[in-house]
Amino acid sequence: MIKNKIFAWLKEGTITIPSFLFSNYKAMGLNEQEVMLLLQLQSFLEMGNAFPTPSQMAARMTFQESECLFMIQRLIQKGFIDIEEEYSNSIRHERYSIDPLYEKMIDCFLKTLNQTESAQAAADND
Amino acid sequence: MIKNKIFAWLKEGTITIPSFLFSNYKAMGLNEQEVMLLLQLQSFLEMGNAFPTPSQMAARMTFQESECLFMIQRLIQKGFIDIEEEYSNSIRHERYSIDPLYEKMIDCFLKTLNQTESAQAAADND
Amino acid sequence: MIKNKIFAWLKEGTITIPSFLFSNYKAMGLNEQEVMLLLQLQSFLEMGNAFPTPSQMAARMTFQESECLFMIQRLIQKGFIDIEEEYSNSIRHERYSIDPLYEKMIDCFLKTLNQTESAQAAADND
Amino acid sequence: MIKNKIFAWLKEGTITIPSFLFSNYKAMGLNEQEVMLLLQLQSFLEMGNAFPTPSQMAARMTFQESECLFMIQRLIQKGFIDIEEEYSNSIRHERYSIDPLYEKMIDCFLKTLNQTESAQAAADND
Repeated sequence: MIKNKIFAWLKEGTITIPSFLFSNYKAMGLNEQEVMLLLQLQSFLEMGNAFPTPSQMAARMTFQESECLFMIQRLIQKGFIDIEEEYSNSIRHERYSIDPLYEKMIDCFLKTLNQTESAQAAADND
Repeated sequence: MIKNKIFAWLKEGTITIPSFLFSNYKAMGLNEQEVMLLLQLQSFLEMGNAFPTPSQMAARMTFQESECLFMIQRLIQKGFIDIEEEYSNSIRHERYSIDPLYEKMIDCFLKTLNQTESAQAAADND
Repeated sequence: MIKNKIFAWLKEGTITIPSFLFSNYKAMGLNEQEVMLLLQLQSFLEMGNAFPTPSQMAARMTFQESECLFMIQRLIQKGFIDIEEEYSNSIRHERYSIDPLYEKMIDCFLKTLNQTESAQAAADND
Repeated sequence: MIKNKIFAWLKEGTITIPSFLFSNYKAMGLNEQEVMLLLQLQSFLEMGNAFPTPSQMAARMTFQESECLFMIQRLIQKGFIDIEEEYSNSIRHERYSIDPLYEKMIDCFLKTLNQTESAQAAADND
């Protein structure tokens, strides 16, 4: 039935991303594959899976599990991903956080804004 | 002033993408770099630039202009991008369309749905 | 610090709504206040609160608690909201679902589409 | 054909709204009907219609044309809507802007943030 299929499509949901990320990830030191991995993490987080396994990541990406793991480790080192710990019922859980990505995005945004303002001021003084 | 900076951030806007694309682009025959190029096109289209130059693409991506052009051509051949023509004031304009991407996404979605339903039916018959 | 304030803004998040709802809620038998209440429910659901109290609703809306309760009951009767039950650790929980809203939206969309197609067919036959 | 119908649904698009608006419009001095009118304006603007007529507004809302006009005037007086002028081919065009809404939203956000920080500081000093 058509209705059920459109409903199923609706239930798949959407993911909303700042346009600024698309125009500035290169300036932030990221390449396309790294951005996609970060967006996959955001997608997993929004679906309630805060610590996807390399196997779950690799199922959706064109990388092997070992490559996913390596990319995650590199993004942790480069300061785009954090691993947070939480305890529920005294069991320790780990979860990825991409808050560092968003912090770096804001740094980049403020830097861009300051450059624009400086350029404007210089032009006004001419 | 803080207010102006948050307002400037807001004005940057967002881009909304079906979650299904992230979980199924591999099945659709796309890799991470191709998805990013398609999302860049969507971002340009939403900002009113329907025919970004290879130079404009390359400024945001980690690829050279020639690589951007090559990737666009390959995505046209693979049926994810169309070039449409329009005339305004009798001048011919070209514009990219990523409607084919969305059509392929729906094909993939309906296929996935049918497989789930078939598996369900098989399980029910056991 | 500016950065923290923009980060706090980002963390507030966004809510994404089909444009079709805005252009067709009247045809679906909803008024502006009812749409806002349904969007408030969606906002609560996305923040993980699946059964906001009338008091929590009233704190955000220009209605009294009793009015919120009355509006929710009317929207249940009109078939836009469901109350679902779930059990966790053998405790019964209730949760609102706005799936019925989305089902009605699709009904309305398909009806609109059929009317457009019929009108087109009639025009083609002339 | 199912595919065409889902594609048509996709083409309807979405509208993305800061969650903060839903939790704080009351504090900003807006009621539900005013928020809906502002969101309708945003929806028209995003579809490229920057100056919808009262008749176009009334077709989507439960208000008469005269009521739409009155509400718009009140929202201009209350500082949520601006009318901007632009000239193209030496013809004067008017367009609505809801930038003032977003500015007021940021004012409200910064005020809320300061209150939270003050409360925190007071608690820390106890």
